Amino acid sequence: MKERKIPKETIDRLPLYLRCLNKLIDQGEENISSKNFSSRLNLNSAQVRKDLSYFGDFGKRGVGYETKKLASKIREILNLDRRWKMALVGVGNIGSALLTYSGFDRRVFEVAIAFDSNPQLIGQEINGVEVEDVSNLSGRIAEEGVKLGIIAVPASSAQQVADKLVEGGVKGVLNFAPALLDLPEYIQLAQVDITKELEQLLYYL
Amino acid sequence: MKERKIPKETIDRLPLYLRCLNKLIDQGEENISSKNFSSRLNLNSAQVRKDLSYFGDFGKRGVGYETKKLASKIREILNLDRRWKMALVGVGNIGSALLTYSGFDRRVFEVAIAFDSNPQLIGQEINGVEVEDVSNLSGRIAEEGVKLGIIAVPASSAQQVADKLVEGGVKGVLNFAPALLDLPEYIQLAQVDITKELEQLLYYL
Repeated sequence: MKERKIPKETIDRLPLYLRCLNKLIDQGEENISSKNFSSRLNLNSAQVRKDLSYFGDFGKRGVGYETKKLASKIREILNLDRRWKMALVGVGNIGSALLTYSGFDRRVFEVAIAFDSNPQLIGQEINGVEVEDVSNLSGRIAEEGVKLGIIAVPASSAQQVADKLVEGGVKGVLNFAPALLDLPEYIQLAQVDITKELEQLLYYL
Repeated sequence: MKERKIPKETIDRLPLYLRCLNKLIDQGEENISSKNFSSRLNLNSAQVRKDLSYFGDFGKRGVGYETKKLASKIREILNLDRRWKMALVGVGNIGSALLTYSGFDRRVFEVAIAFDSNPQLIGQEINGVEVEDVSNLSGRIAEEGVKLGIIAVPASSAQQVADKLVEGGVKGVLNFAPALLDLPEYIQLAQVDITKELEQLLYYL
């Protein structure tokens, strides 16, 4: 079912469908119509039907989609049906907030290992994770089989950290540093760029 | 010069041009070619030239763009040439990290006021900002003339906080809560959605 033909825009929307479905399941709802989806997510219903059509015929006329079945399918497609070990590099303000962040689904995302260059932080334990010396970065993540890296260091050292993550065998990088990273094409990169979001907002004010 | 015709994709790229220009200015570079821009930002040079053409004729054949002049023009367009007071709601992990976040340009972005509902946090001072009671939110931001709100509360209370921010006169909202907000159309909304970014990454791994 996981065909390469699914457009990126559809993939990008799947986490939103999933979040919406999880909320409905918590509320005991067994079905959702594409119309209901579209009003909750501010999408048009044709778009919703098209998005969901990529994943098999889940909709039933007059009833809509079964929430649990669809949620489990989306989790499968997004590879959320297994556990992912993450390495966090940089345990400053943002980094330590991420170590205790409650928004991660712990069944899926586990910060397995954390690094910093500050001798005062190395050896400390934050939320059950011991901070290790960043100079051992690539060796340690290779050892631990970590495939996801989170960069929360200053912009000036972000590229260097990214290179070490790649060297250690990471396949995906989530970058919080306000820096443009140059990575091999096979590495998936996502950027959380707080300043950029704010700057874009201001234009429209 | 600030015409409505500038496409959103161009506006979205302006913060990246600006970051690149700031770096060059720090390094003492006086000019940049569109080719250099495009390799630094992974864009094609035709796209760069088109983007920059919206802001007047800054390029010179064989020389490129004057870094300082272009940076100041982009700052003006993005409304970064003045100071913006921000209200931060939620001083938990992410919120307190934002209060001490070094990525904000303090000449532009000032967290003027912070709120929480936790009595143990109210009255405390973090990085020079006193945490106030969230029950006074809309009144206090109206008083202070705050136009930008940052939401860093749990998803379950994000909508309620957003409504109060709007009531208090905020024009733009940066939302860190993993929740879809329903806001009036005249409010500009940006979302920093850490879990969504991670979930999108996983698909491609």
